[in-house]
Amino acid sequence: MSASSSNSGIAPRYLGVIGAGECDVELGRLAEEVGRRVAVAGAVLVCGGMGGVMEAACRGAKAAGGLTVGILPGPNRGGANEYVDVAIATGIGEARNVAVVRTSDALIAVGGSYGTLSEIGFALKMHKKVIGLKTWDIEGIIPAVTAQEAVRLAAE
Amino acid sequence: MSASSSNSGIAPRYLGVIGAGECDVELGRLAEEVGRRVAVAGAVLVCGGMGGVMEAACRGAKAAGGLTVGILPGPNRGGANEYVDVAIATGIGEARNVAVVRTSDALIAVGGSYGTLSEIGFALKMHKKVIGLKTWDIEGIIPAVTAQEAVRLAAE
Amino acid sequence: MSASSSNSGIAPRYLGVIGAGECDVELGRLAEEVGRRVAVAGAVLVCGGMGGVMEAACRGAKAAGGLTVGILPGPNRGGANEYVDVAIATGIGEARNVAVVRTSDALIAVGGSYGTLSEIGFALKMHKKVIGLKTWDIEGIIPAVTAQEAVRLAAE
Amino acid sequence: MSASSSNSGIAPRYLGVIGAGECDVELGRLAEEVGRRVAVAGAVLVCGGMGGVMEAACRGAKAAGGLTVGILPGPNRGGANEYVDVAIATGIGEARNVAVVRTSDALIAVGGSYGTLSEIGFALKMHKKVIGLKTWDIEGIIPAVTAQEAVRLAAE
Repeated sequence: MSASSSNSGIAPRYLGVIGAGECDVELGRLAEEVGRRVAVAGAVLVCGGMGGVMEAACRGAKAAGGLTVGILPGPNRGGANEYVDVAIATGIGEARNVAVVRTSDALIAVGGSYGTLSEIGFALKMHKKVIGLKTWDIEGIIPAVTAQEAVRLAAE
Repeated sequence: MSASSSNSGIAPRYLGVIGAGECDVELGRLAEEVGRRVAVAGAVLVCGGMGGVMEAACRGAKAAGGLTVGILPGPNRGGANEYVDVAIATGIGEARNVAVVRTSDALIAVGGSYGTLSEIGFALKMHKKVIGLKTWDIEGIIPAVTAQEAVRLAAE
Repeated sequence: MSASSSNSGIAPRYLGVIGAGECDVELGRLAEEVGRRVAVAGAVLVCGGMGGVMEAACRGAKAAGGLTVGILPGPNRGGANEYVDVAIATGIGEARNVAVVRTSDALIAVGGSYGTLSEIGFALKMHKKVIGLKTWDIEGIIPAVTAQEAVRLAAE
Repeated sequence: MSASSSNSGIAPRYLGVIGAGECDVELGRLAEEVGRRVAVAGAVLVCGGMGGVMEAACRGAKAAGGLTVGILPGPNRGGANEYVDVAIATGIGEARNVAVVRTSDALIAVGGSYGTLSEIGFALKMHKKVIGLKTWDIEGIIPAVTAQEAVRLAAE
């Protein structure tokens, strides 16, 4: 799948999925379902390319035939999880969180690490829609209960 | 004043003051008092170099003879407020928030914008001490009531 | 086309094409031919996503059914040329040149602007192969005469 | 010494000294003399904060009572050489080269590594004056023979 040449000819949305590099089984299942629904919605999945929530979301998207983009903090593409289609090696460390946010039209935060918090801050500063699933309680985040609801709100 | 050649010969602490580029009079007074006390404590004041809380903190530090460092998002030093001694032009936009955090030994958050939230996220992720004055209610932030208390806690 | 799920199951190479954002017709034709051959070689084309050499290379790659990635300096994806499949908005300005280099396994420099020179410097510092077509005469660059030769050398 | 409160009340120039993190004795002496003359000229010395040419230049500047700024690639200030007064920890790796260039009004390149080449490329792209001492032969660089001449040309 190419990100810009779907049959409809309409440019796809890029939806960011943000969350910790490690997560428990329950959160992983939630992230995977988010990823699957992002792909079903025809959107490109953008993330930080690492493990945990990011890997689970990419796995879900790939299972549904989607395209996944991982914007990595490290110096080479090898750090990407195995479900990343297009890996970007930035070499700028945590500052790559800004690129994850800027590349996404809207973001879905799954769970609540501090790195995710930095991305939420950037996203809300940049007036991007942020949907929250079991994440920080920050004014401006639109809370969702299910993966289906989260992706629907993000894709609108 | 040089940042590394005080009489004592001990390397100074670098204390970050983070807050919005615009603020009301009350928050400005609080930031100015924080800046003044950072200087009195013998620490270098690090900030994003712009207006609002950052400018007020720098003004306070300069009034007490301190050294101020402004790490700017823009492409040239001209964007710094007039109380910045050493201006760093990064040209990397909001990603410079990471450099503000990494350069600081501890941080004092004054008020609650989204940019500040991104810095809080980075700082807590990097296990830096974050003192909060009228800021976000985030687990991990050490709340303070006065500028004096905030700087004392940060400088410890 | 997905970048990581070709029939062979072998991860593709990422080849960077670097060059100025404006170029004359001759250099544009050369860049387009480079892009076409990158796609034919089964590699992902990585570039800075803007006009000139970058746009010509992407156009060539798309004409041959390739996948193109544009790593942009600006704050949103809208700045990408129309032949970019996957656009990354970094918002870090010229510092994104590092990400173009780090994401590429090898690079082909077409023409000789100063931005390209910065990328050549980074690439050689990072021990990446750099093939040169009508570009700077820098020790370490492997010169090529035709697009075909350049891509063959880069893809090896 | 504060960078902005000299007796004259005139904002100081920031002069960047760029060069490799390792260098031989001869190049080190040249860089040290450049640093000394930058300080004598009343300018702030900006560099990448590491060893080699950068350390030699800082040592020279400190011997003459100047102010030195080191913009580091790594995640903490501890990586700075001992002659850096104000250390900036960016955590963005080699991308910090852009900040060294943007923070400087003019640059002096001492010797010829690939990292230096990337900085020369950025500096010339940004229309900054670049003075060269035993460095790359790039169109746009103003060659100098002695440290004295280099600093005079840069400070003009």
